[in-house]
Amino acid sequence: MARDQIVALAGGVGGAKLALGLAAILGERLSIVVNTADDFEHLGLHVSPDLDTVMYTLAGLANPETGWGRAGESWNFMAALSQLGGESWFNLGDRDLATHVERTRRLRAGETLAAVTADLCRRLGIASQVLPMSNDAVRTVVATAEEGELDFQHWFVRRRCEPAVTVIRFAGIEGAAALPEALALLAGEAVRGLVICPSNPFVSVAPILAVPGLRASIERLRVPRVAVTPIVGGQAIKGPAAKMLAELGHPVSAAGVAACYRGLIDGFVLDQADRSAKGEIEGLGMRVLVADTMMRTHADKRRLAGEVLDFVDKLAAAG
Amino acid sequence: MARDQIVALAGGVGGAKLALGLAAILGERLSIVVNTADDFEHLGLHVSPDLDTVMYTLAGLANPETGWGRAGESWNFMAALSQLGGESWFNLGDRDLATHVERTRRLRAGETLAAVTADLCRRLGIASQVLPMSNDAVRTVVATAEEGELDFQHWFVRRRCEPAVTVIRFAGIEGAAALPEALALLAGEAVRGLVICPSNPFVSVAPILAVPGLRASIERLRVPRVAVTPIVGGQAIKGPAAKMLAELGHPVSAAGVAACYRGLIDGFVLDQADRSAKGEIEGLGMRVLVADTMMRTHADKRRLAGEVLDFVDKLAAAG
Repeated sequence: MARDQIVALAGGVGGAKLALGLAAILGERLSIVVNTADDFEHLGLHVSPDLDTVMYTLAGLANPETGWGRAGESWNFMAALSQLGGESWFNLGDRDLATHVERTRRLRAGETLAAVTADLCRRLGIASQVLPMSNDAVRTVVATAEEGELDFQHWFVRRRCEPAVTVIRFAGIEGAAALPEALALLAGEAVRGLVICPSNPFVSVAPILAVPGLRASIERLRVPRVAVTPIVGGQAIKGPAAKMLAELGHPVSAAGVAACYRGLIDGFVLDQADRSAKGEIEGLGMRVLVADTMMRTHADKRRLAGEVLDFVDKLAAAG
Repeated sequence: MARDQIVALAGGVGGAKLALGLAAILGERLSIVVNTADDFEHLGLHVSPDLDTVMYTLAGLANPETGWGRAGESWNFMAALSQLGGESWFNLGDRDLATHVERTRRLRAGETLAAVTADLCRRLGIASQVLPMSNDAVRTVVATAEEGELDFQHWFVRRRCEPAVTVIRFAGIEGAAALPEALALLAGEAVRGLVICPSNPFVSVAPILAVPGLRASIERLRVPRVAVTPIVGGQAIKGPAAKMLAELGHPVSAAGVAACYRGLIDGFVLDQADRSAKGEIEGLGMRVLVADTMMRTHADKRRLAGEVLDFVDKLAAAG
């Protein structure tokens, strides 16, 4: 059997961008394990922000300006909901809402999140596999100095990431089962390499790795495992990664992120703006690829994905 | 205490039109008991078509062309749902959807349908009371010659009223409790009169009358009870009333409708096109008002409502 399958781990916007580049090259030879610890129940609907961002991005439906939701969206539902006194702090576009209503209906009818996701992706023409990290509910809880524990979306959206983070935990993680498809893939002979996409290490990648069995499966992989930095020049491209690094006592740098993956990965993709950190990261026991990691255009995504795959193959050849 | 409260019974479009005329005159002195046997669960949401038609009509939000849903509606949710393979036979507009999502959320949280309805109406600026006939689930089932029993919305929307009706039953009606507010109002001294709006006698008014206690309360009223015809010139203004009269073995005429209310009402409002039926209907033991019952404009609704109220007061004066 050919080792031709790439397994990617991804959260939302940044992860989805690289996933799109990888999907453009690999098609069905890509399996993306997606964080679902951001999922929450809102207005009685099951909302899976990261799964949706990955799905919309791969289907060419994502809104490039917001980084979430669908392009060309309309907001008449939200306007009417506000008029009726409904909760309006979390924006749900009219088209986006169809995903939440249909997913919720199917989950209530007994389908798994993985089965619903696979079917929605098939209908949207996505050839790569999009796998939720678990079919079971895991919920990120952010402990803050000022306001105690907050559900992730409350901290992230309602409170705009403002309260300082002291601890992050994943409620339900002990009882969550990894997707059997993901475990079988990682245990088999088909995997060419593993790519941790440029996602937040604390709230996007950490929950995936915390699902019982997943981290150990990745540690046992005998093929290259690489991560792409979500931090460039000491700043996050998008989202609260830099703020979290600082508040949780890590260096706010690519090296700070690389250190989070020490012992787990073989290679780290560093932005050219941070090339001076190459030696420091190599000192963590990983090889370093310096690349242009900014993904503004579709061509950028495909180019970076190609460089990451070349890096994987180079690490494999080097044994 | 002044006898100043009008109680109206209403289903969807036609009933809502007269209710709007009555509301324009009476404001908070109007209580509308609305059919909920058309309610159904769709896409995991609780949909109350008649309550919504009455609510949107009284709030000035109704779509005058369709007779259901909201004016100036957009359909991006439905388009996206179809793309995802969801059920698309029942159209839900983007704005309308906010009502169903918010109502469903509150019902699941333990609020009654009456409480949710009252709050939504308050937020939409409706001064009249809109009362569901019951907080309990009652479901109209249409038995058909060709296709057996069909849930009402399947027969009405999905099958476009095509299969011939043999029997209509209201599943759950024995266990449904009338709204205490409605029973208290009908048993008290505040009621000036009762108006059965021009709604379908079989699937809009009959379920209301079938809720245990409601018909008996109306029979015990010592103030005038009048009905306005939904049939003009042998045709229904809107909906399947004429088809149902024929298939269920009734004369397809205003007199056929009046006969359905024999023993229950004191007066019947007949369209001027059917003035020749005045004697026949008086023969059923009710007084008859001949009026222009076609409600095309807002002025029409208000004029007809005024004439109906005058008729109620004239019947009261006549003892």
